[in-house]
Amino acid sequence: MAFAPHQSDAAAVATIRTLAADVVGKANSGHPGAPMGMAPVAHVLYSRFINANPKNSKWLNRDRFVLSNGCALQYILLHLAGYKLSLDDLKAFRQVDSLTPGHPEAGHTDGIEVTTGPLGQGFGNGVGLAIAQAHLGALYNKPGFDLIDNYTYVFCGDGCLMEGVASEAASLAGHLQLGNLIVIYDDNHISIDGDTAVAFTENVEQRFLSYNWQVLHVDDGDSDLGAIHNAIAEARQEKNKPTIIRLKTTIGFGSKQQGTHGVHGSPLKADDIQALKTKFGFPADEKFHVPKETYDAYAEIGKRGAALEAKWNDLLAAYKDKYPKEHAELTRRISGQLPEGWEKTLPVYKPADAAQASRKLSEIVLTAVTPALPELVGGSADLTGSNLTKVKGTTDFQPPSTKLGSYAGTYIRYGVREHGMGAIANGLSAYGGIIPFVATFLNFVSYAAGAVRLSALSKHQVIWVATHDSIGLGEDGPTHQPIETAIHLRAIPNLDFWRPADGNETSAAYYVALTSKETPSVLSLSRQNLPNLEGSTIERAARGGYVVHEEESEDLTIVSSGSEVSIAVEAAGKLKAEGIKTRVVSLPCWSVFDKQDEQYRLSVLRSGAPILSLEALSTAGWQKYSHEQFGLPAWGASGPYQKIYEKFGITGSNIAVVGKKVVDFYKKKGGEITSPLVKAI
Amino acid sequence: MAFAPHQSDAAAVATIRTLAADVVGKANSGHPGAPMGMAPVAHVLYSRFINANPKNSKWLNRDRFVLSNGCALQYILLHLAGYKLSLDDLKAFRQVDSLTPGHPEAGHTDGIEVTTGPLGQGFGNGVGLAIAQAHLGALYNKPGFDLIDNYTYVFCGDGCLMEGVASEAASLAGHLQLGNLIVIYDDNHISIDGDTAVAFTENVEQRFLSYNWQVLHVDDGDSDLGAIHNAIAEARQEKNKPTIIRLKTTIGFGSKQQGTHGVHGSPLKADDIQALKTKFGFPADEKFHVPKETYDAYAEIGKRGAALEAKWNDLLAAYKDKYPKEHAELTRRISGQLPEGWEKTLPVYKPADAAQASRKLSEIVLTAVTPALPELVGGSADLTGSNLTKVKGTTDFQPPSTKLGSYAGTYIRYGVREHGMGAIANGLSAYGGIIPFVATFLNFVSYAAGAVRLSALSKHQVIWVATHDSIGLGEDGPTHQPIETAIHLRAIPNLDFWRPADGNETSAAYYVALTSKETPSVLSLSRQNLPNLEGSTIERAARGGYVVHEEESEDLTIVSSGSEVSIAVEAAGKLKAEGIKTRVVSLPCWSVFDKQDEQYRLSVLRSGAPILSLEALSTAGWQKYSHEQFGLPAWGASGPYQKIYEKFGITGSNIAVVGKKVVDFYKKKGGEITSPLVKAI
Repeated sequence: MAFAPHQSDAAAVATIRTLAADVVGKANSGHPGAPMGMAPVAHVLYSRFINANPKNSKWLNRDRFVLSNGCALQYILLHLAGYKLSLDDLKAFRQVDSLTPGHPEAGHTDGIEVTTGPLGQGFGNGVGLAIAQAHLGALYNKPGFDLIDNYTYVFCGDGCLMEGVASEAASLAGHLQLGNLIVIYDDNHISIDGDTAVAFTENVEQRFLSYNWQVLHVDDGDSDLGAIHNAIAEARQEKNKPTIIRLKTTIGFGSKQQGTHGVHGSPLKADDIQALKTKFGFPADEKFHVPKETYDAYAEIGKRGAALEAKWNDLLAAYKDKYPKEHAELTRRISGQLPEGWEKTLPVYKPADAAQASRKLSEIVLTAVTPALPELVGGSADLTGSNLTKVKGTTDFQPPSTKLGSYAGTYIRYGVREHGMGAIANGLSAYGGIIPFVATFLNFVSYAAGAVRLSALSKHQVIWVATHDSIGLGEDGPTHQPIETAIHLRAIPNLDFWRPADGNETSAAYYVALTSKETPSVLSLSRQNLPNLEGSTIERAARGGYVVHEEESEDLTIVSSGSEVSIAVEAAGKLKAEGIKTRVVSLPCWSVFDKQDEQYRLSVLRSGAPILSLEALSTAGWQKYSHEQFGLPAWGASGPYQKIYEKFGITGSNIAVVGKKVVDFYKKKGGEITSPLVKAI
Repeated sequence: MAFAPHQSDAAAVATIRTLAADVVGKANSGHPGAPMGMAPVAHVLYSRFINANPKNSKWLNRDRFVLSNGCALQYILLHLAGYKLSLDDLKAFRQVDSLTPGHPEAGHTDGIEVTTGPLGQGFGNGVGLAIAQAHLGALYNKPGFDLIDNYTYVFCGDGCLMEGVASEAASLAGHLQLGNLIVIYDDNHISIDGDTAVAFTENVEQRFLSYNWQVLHVDDGDSDLGAIHNAIAEARQEKNKPTIIRLKTTIGFGSKQQGTHGVHGSPLKADDIQALKTKFGFPADEKFHVPKETYDAYAEIGKRGAALEAKWNDLLAAYKDKYPKEHAELTRRISGQLPEGWEKTLPVYKPADAAQASRKLSEIVLTAVTPALPELVGGSADLTGSNLTKVKGTTDFQPPSTKLGSYAGTYIRYGVREHGMGAIANGLSAYGGIIPFVATFLNFVSYAAGAVRLSALSKHQVIWVATHDSIGLGEDGPTHQPIETAIHLRAIPNLDFWRPADGNETSAAYYVALTSKETPSVLSLSRQNLPNLEGSTIERAARGGYVVHEEESEDLTIVSSGSEVSIAVEAAGKLKAEGIKTRVVSLPCWSVFDKQDEQYRLSVLRSGAPILSLEALSTAGWQKYSHEQFGLPAWGASGPYQKIYEKFGITGSNIAVVGKKVVDFYKKKGGEITSPLVKAI
């Protein structure tokens, strides 16, 4: 496809540039330089290549566009292309409750695929989007029915490429031979600290060659629209490698300060904007000027997209006739509906069933539900045998040439790349039709914290299988034993952190995680065996907290989670022998429990007796649910896990002693004991 | 230096291999494969190159050895070389309270420089150790006095090289031209998931060439000691580039399962160990066998090291005569003592002084103390102008050929590499003589969580300048506004998280951070201006918490931190006008406050009236210090910061309303109000 210049090109590029200056100028905050520099490539991509229908931003086979160096550019493009974003929305850039927050947020603004701004994330998301296309295409495309064949385009800057999360994702993308992924690197030599010469002098082209990418470059990204066009066209031809196009641009092109970091993160001055507009033949004093020819040109893009979708809908209808089963499954998956009755496959346990590690219980759940849920696409950061995440019979997601699997495979070998894995999973979820689960030790979810918080902010349904979740992992010791991790994750809004205590609770955790379409979950799972509890059921545990052992007129309630619940039950038995009536509450998921009605919550953590929390982690945060807290005073230790539990006094015997001390203290203190849930505000 | 084979070489290599099998076998836990595969290079490095005195593991100019794929190998080498680690200690591998925990921990075991095991960290630490040498050498070496000229050797495996933290550090190391850094990459093609063909197929040599490293390789790392020797010798010759030596080895060499992931993370079977010993000519049934010739050979290494240190001590004595000032400064820095009276340089404020952002107050502190504290070596992850971390007049730490600075410079341009920065800072601290500070937005400290927790576990004094610490950053919006970050960091043992409220508190935070030699600190600082408080002093704030506004027989106490303290004071004023006497407590650092004596703590957060916490973050954890909590219900918002504070009700007026509600609630409830610090356990 040769480049055909159009008379509207120059005005369109100028429009993007001047809008960037105006949007950032009005907000008096933001980053004008990158949008101004990337205006030509943005225009070429949107006007010549992007297949998307602005009137239906959810059309499945749309090309995905990710602005990894998230900034106002994306809002400008969405507005011009006719998405649900008005000129007034642009004028409200970075204002409270606008559709145009400081950085693009998925789920917040029509047409935004993934949340960007935190550098490197969008790059990883792009790899996930590309994996999703390759996978769904391999599963559902049929001869004559290329239903799923979109490209993923990622724009990124120097900052993104310096981030380790992007390095991890890039290495995996090369291994996976993702020919549908095209990254355009805005090589403008400027970051916030000034010239990239101060810190970023690696040979980026060579680095990406080492990752098995196709590497192209455009030397004049400021004005050579033809070269930009040809590079993207060439990228699309390479089917077995992702492509990175190194595009030399001038940051803040057109500004008096172009090419300096003065245009990176601060608005242009008023006279500079005026001069810019004059230079481009725009009225110097008119703000937010969009020439009619630009709107017209972008309307054509919209028409093209609408026509493409209409054609695709016809194809889908024909597909339905020929492949009714695949059609039903694909459309169900895209709709986000789970198949009817899937939850009946969840394992149910009785107290007499053998004790097992909750990581093993997780494997049993995955094994049980996988046949019913083809949308589960899982993987581990090189800990498959420890996380127990590969269901027997599943195939690796691998390029066919490796002979190690196929793109139809559902198990992703992420390598030791936790942060990249997290960002990729966000992309998988954002694509639609896939529920990704990813796995590592709980302690190393921290490596991916940047991606995890964006799952939650972006409402991506990602499930983390986080095994080896406490000192109970034993010998690996303090370097691997989480202390702070649970409260870190519990404090993230819209993230469900589950720490199930037994088989039924593990099934409950998966049940809620799989049915929470807009909430990511971290399942914190033990390495060591856990007995099945009297009183646990999937239904009860699915409320996030429940009474696992009831007593009337109790002297004490112990509230606990995960592997410590059975220790609490043991302590309760010992206390009972001493005449101290002790209830035990299991609280596997704080955020789900917090959503229950007040009456229920106050029935579980009720007034009248002291409540003692028990968890083999930092006690931070447990004060919300208890009067007294027992946990780890500092770091864990290396050794056989039973010895470590003994060292830290997390045993039935010692907790009974602690419990008695608590009871005595509150008896001595006297007065009414109110549930910690009873609050003024 | 040509390779001179020694008759003891074969036995020494076999000893390392069989000890690895025995150590892991006795523990019935650990990773035998890598030590067995890396035994030859470990032996060549220790016997031919390492300059270190096992009898004084703290000798300044020792070569640093980092086992980034932290495992039993390091313990075996330390034992053989004569460090304070007995054969019995090896037998106690992975047992509770032993000197040989699951992964090597700095500060726990003699001769361990940095804590490794969490993959990629050691690689980053190694870059930090190399920067430290380059910096201190540039500062203190004089003609004829190469006092500081050690090498840093890092062993790493596939896992480390997949981690983004290592990619970030490697790119920076190449930029910085660290010729004193030699990385040996154990290319054994095996990780936990099996053959690296499943996920790690990039061209590592080409990648490191792209980073501006010297790249060497040894094809037979299993037996070609001469080639290993020559590669290390060649690496040492390259003064302007770090070197990576790709060493092909067979994991678990000698085992029946060699070359498979079966030897990666599980002990060898008993008969396999016996066959291994027979193969190497060792008694098949003797465990922990060390031939006398091996001990003898390693005793020679020890002697060489002791002689080197003695010679160096003579050099230092001569240096003292010729350069008394430099000598005094260097030895003071190495001792970790701050110069007398340095604290008098800390800025002190009066309430009438202008309101300033605490990031600006931080800059004022750094500007004031830097002349007194040459050990401060700082930098930012490409946010210098926002973090305000570069003190005027300081020079960049840069290779001289860049003409952007020199190795004597104290300001490091980290690039957008938060995780690498954190790992490098740990290495800087581990070297000695340097107090590193590093900077980014508080939200992006999360990218470096893996390194931050290891600072704390390893007792590295690293100071994080974490600006833009709440919704107060304004326009950048939810993607950049921390919610969960404070409680995450507060829950890490041995980490001081400071959120100062004004000028004196900022000085206090620095005072404690700079004098806490074994504790890292995160200083959480505002973007927006904060007034100086009546009642704040450095001394009071240095206790971690104090009464900033006192009232007798109060109706309410508001406890707050950072930018919300002045809002609490404003609310207290409004409440007073309504007849509600309100104390205000500032709690800038929980962990420091927790260390104060009980009487003091109970005088600050006293019984008798309800305590309401106020912070523009998640309320998680505040229940420990308060009866009621006010904070952010979920994510922040993008907009001018005052508008966001209004949106979320964090204003003097609204907090007064909330405070009144709290007072009414507790009046109505009746009964005694006990401080939340009064506990049974």
